[in-house]
Amino acid sequence: MPDGDAAPRRATISDIAQRAGVSTSAVSYALNDKPGVSASTREHILAIASEMDFAPAAAARMLSQGRTDTVGLVLRRDPRFLANESFFMELIAGLEIGLAEQHRGLLLQLAVDREAEMAMYRQWKAAQRVDAVLLVDFERDDPRVGLVGGIGLPAVAIGDPSLTGGLTTAWTDDATGIREAVRHLHGLGHRSIARVAGASTLAHVHIRDEAFAAECAALGVRHRILHGDFGVELAERHTNDVLDDADDPCTAIVYDSGLTAVTGLKTARARGVSVPDQLSIIGWDDSLLTTVTDPPISVMSYDVVSYGTAAAGLLGALLAGREPAAHLAGTPTLHERGTTARAEAR
Amino acid sequence: MPDGDAAPRRATISDIAQRAGVSTSAVSYALNDKPGVSASTREHILAIASEMDFAPAAAARMLSQGRTDTVGLVLRRDPRFLANESFFMELIAGLEIGLAEQHRGLLLQLAVDREAEMAMYRQWKAAQRVDAVLLVDFERDDPRVGLVGGIGLPAVAIGDPSLTGGLTTAWTDDATGIREAVRHLHGLGHRSIARVAGASTLAHVHIRDEAFAAECAALGVRHRILHGDFGVELAERHTNDVLDDADDPCTAIVYDSGLTAVTGLKTARARGVSVPDQLSIIGWDDSLLTTVTDPPISVMSYDVVSYGTAAAGLLGALLAGREPAAHLAGTPTLHERGTTARAEAR
Repeated sequence: MPDGDAAPRRATISDIAQRAGVSTSAVSYALNDKPGVSASTREHILAIASEMDFAPAAAARMLSQGRTDTVGLVLRRDPRFLANESFFMELIAGLEIGLAEQHRGLLLQLAVDREAEMAMYRQWKAAQRVDAVLLVDFERDDPRVGLVGGIGLPAVAIGDPSLTGGLTTAWTDDATGIREAVRHLHGLGHRSIARVAGASTLAHVHIRDEAFAAECAALGVRHRILHGDFGVELAERHTNDVLDDADDPCTAIVYDSGLTAVTGLKTARARGVSVPDQLSIIGWDDSLLTTVTDPPISVMSYDVVSYGTAAAGLLGALLAGREPAAHLAGTPTLHERGTTARAEAR
Repeated sequence: MPDGDAAPRRATISDIAQRAGVSTSAVSYALNDKPGVSASTREHILAIASEMDFAPAAAARMLSQGRTDTVGLVLRRDPRFLANESFFMELIAGLEIGLAEQHRGLLLQLAVDREAEMAMYRQWKAAQRVDAVLLVDFERDDPRVGLVGGIGLPAVAIGDPSLTGGLTTAWTDDATGIREAVRHLHGLGHRSIARVAGASTLAHVHIRDEAFAAECAALGVRHRILHGDFGVELAERHTNDVLDDADDPCTAIVYDSGLTAVTGLKTARARGVSVPDQLSIIGWDDSLLTTVTDPPISVMSYDVVSYGTAAAGLLGALLAGREPAAHLAGTPTLHERGTTARAEAR
C-alpha cells in the first residue's frame, strides 16, 4: 500500500448500492437525507453504509468546503450555577430558535477559565468543528477579540459594542436601563441607593456601574456599589452589609440579576426589614423566578430569548458573507411589581 | 486537473512551516493544540494555516477514524418554554460536567416534532456530526430505539429501562417516588388526592400514573389524574377543575413538575384557597423556583445535575467499548417545605 497507515480501500456509493440491492441514486438520497426513498429503505441503506464503514459524502464535503453547520458557544460558568441563571438558559433558547431556522446546531461547552475557553476556540478552529462562535461575558480589553481575528474564526459578540473590538455585535443598552432604574427610585423619594453588582471585570457590569454613578450624581442621590459574582452567598452578604450601615441607611437596592434580587428579598425579610415598605428592590432580567416571590420583584426587563434569536440572525448574515453592524437588540425597561414603593425613613 | 471540481493543491504542514518560519513539529503542535509552542507562535501558525486554507489534520483524522468528540442531544420542546423548565437546564448542566471531563462537546438542537427529531439523527449519522446521542422524553414503543439501532448510532437513553429497548440507560425511580408522595399525604389524613400530570404519551408520566393509582388504591385513597403538557395554561385549568369539583373535594394535588406546582399554588391562592391549610401541594424536581414562593413548595426531589453527569459517564463508557447496564441515578424523595399539612375538610 502506498500510504503506510491507510485503511483498506474505502467503500463507495456503488458498493453500498450493490450490497443493499438499490440504485446509487437511492444511496445518495439516503446518505444526504433527501426525499426519494422510503424511511425503511433509508434506514436499510444507512445500516449497510455504517457496516461498510462508509465515509459519507457530507463528511468529505465538510473537508473540502470547510462547513460544519455548527456554531460554538463556550460558557465560563460553574455548571451548577448555570441552571439557576435564567439569562443563559433564555439566551440559549433564543439562539436555538434562530439557528434552527438556519439548520445549524449549537455546540455548547463549559470552560473552567479563560485559558480553557481560548484553547477551545483554537481547537475548534484546528479541527473544523464549528463554522463560527458566539462570544459572551466580555471583559475590558478582551483577548478573545484578537484570538478569533488571528485564527480566522468568524464570531458574533453578545455584549456592548464599545468592548467587542469591531466584531459583529448584538447588544442591549444597559446604561440607559440602569439610568431609568435610578430615576424611578429618585421619583419615589429615594435619596440613598445601593447597587449589588456582578463581577467588576465584566464589561456590562462596568457599564452599569458608570451609568449608575453618573445618574445618582446628577440627581443628588447618595450611592454605593458592591461587586460580587452573581452568586447567592455574596448577594446575601452584600445585602446585609448595606442594611448594617447605620450611618447612611439605603432605602433601595438595585441588583444585577434576578437570582441576586431574590436573595436580597429573602435576606431583608429574614432581618425583619419589610419590602417594599422599608426597602425597595429592583432586579435585572425578567424570568419566572422574579414573578413567583411574594411580593413579585420589580425588574429591569427585556426579552432575552429575542436577544438570542437576534444574535443567531447576525451570525447567519455573517456566514452568508455580510458583515452586519452592531445590532441593538433591546433596552431594559422597568417592570414595576411589588418590591418598589415610596421611600420611608428606616 | 484530474478531478473536475477539485480545489488547487492542498497546503501541507511543510508549506505552513515554511511560510511561518517554524519547524513542521511546531506546526503540528499548534494544529493539534498540544504544548510545545508559545501562545503567540500558535496563533501565528493557525493564522497562516487559515490563510492557506489548510485542511487540518483533525478534520482528516475525523474522516479516517470517524470521531467527532461531540455528543448530540435533540430536545422536542417549545424553546420559550425550555428556559422555564429547570429540569432540562439542570440536565444539560450535568451533561456538560461529565462531557467536559471526557473532552467532548454537546451539540444541542431543538426539533419541532418527532419526525424532525428522527431526521436529525439520520443526518447527524450520515454527516458524522456526532459520535453518539442522548435520548430523552421516552414514549411507549419509542421508534427512536429502532432507528439508532438500525443506523448504528451509539445512544444512551435517559428514561425508565422498561421503555428504552435495551439501550444503555440512566434512570430515576419515579414509581417509588410517587408512592412515597401518596403515602406521605395519606399519613397526613388526605383521603382524596389529584394528580396534575404531564402528557400521557410520555413514558415517565405513564409510570407515575400507574404507581400513583396503585398506591392510592392500596391505601383506600380516592384519586383522579388530569393529563396536560407541563405548560402553565393547562396546569391552571386543571387546578381549577380539581377545586371546582364539589362532589369529591380533593385536599391534595401532586404535580409533575416545579413549574406546574408553582402555577397550582398561584391558582389556589387566586381563588382564596389557603395552602397548606385547605390544600396540600407537592411538586416534582427541586429547583430554585419551588423555594422562592411563599410558602416554599414541598417537592419530590433528586439531584438532576448528577443525573446528567451519570448519563454522560455511561456515554463515555459506551464509546470506550463497554456496554454498561441500566444505571439507577436516583430515587426522588420528599423534601417537605411549606405546602403540605394535615388534611382539613374543604
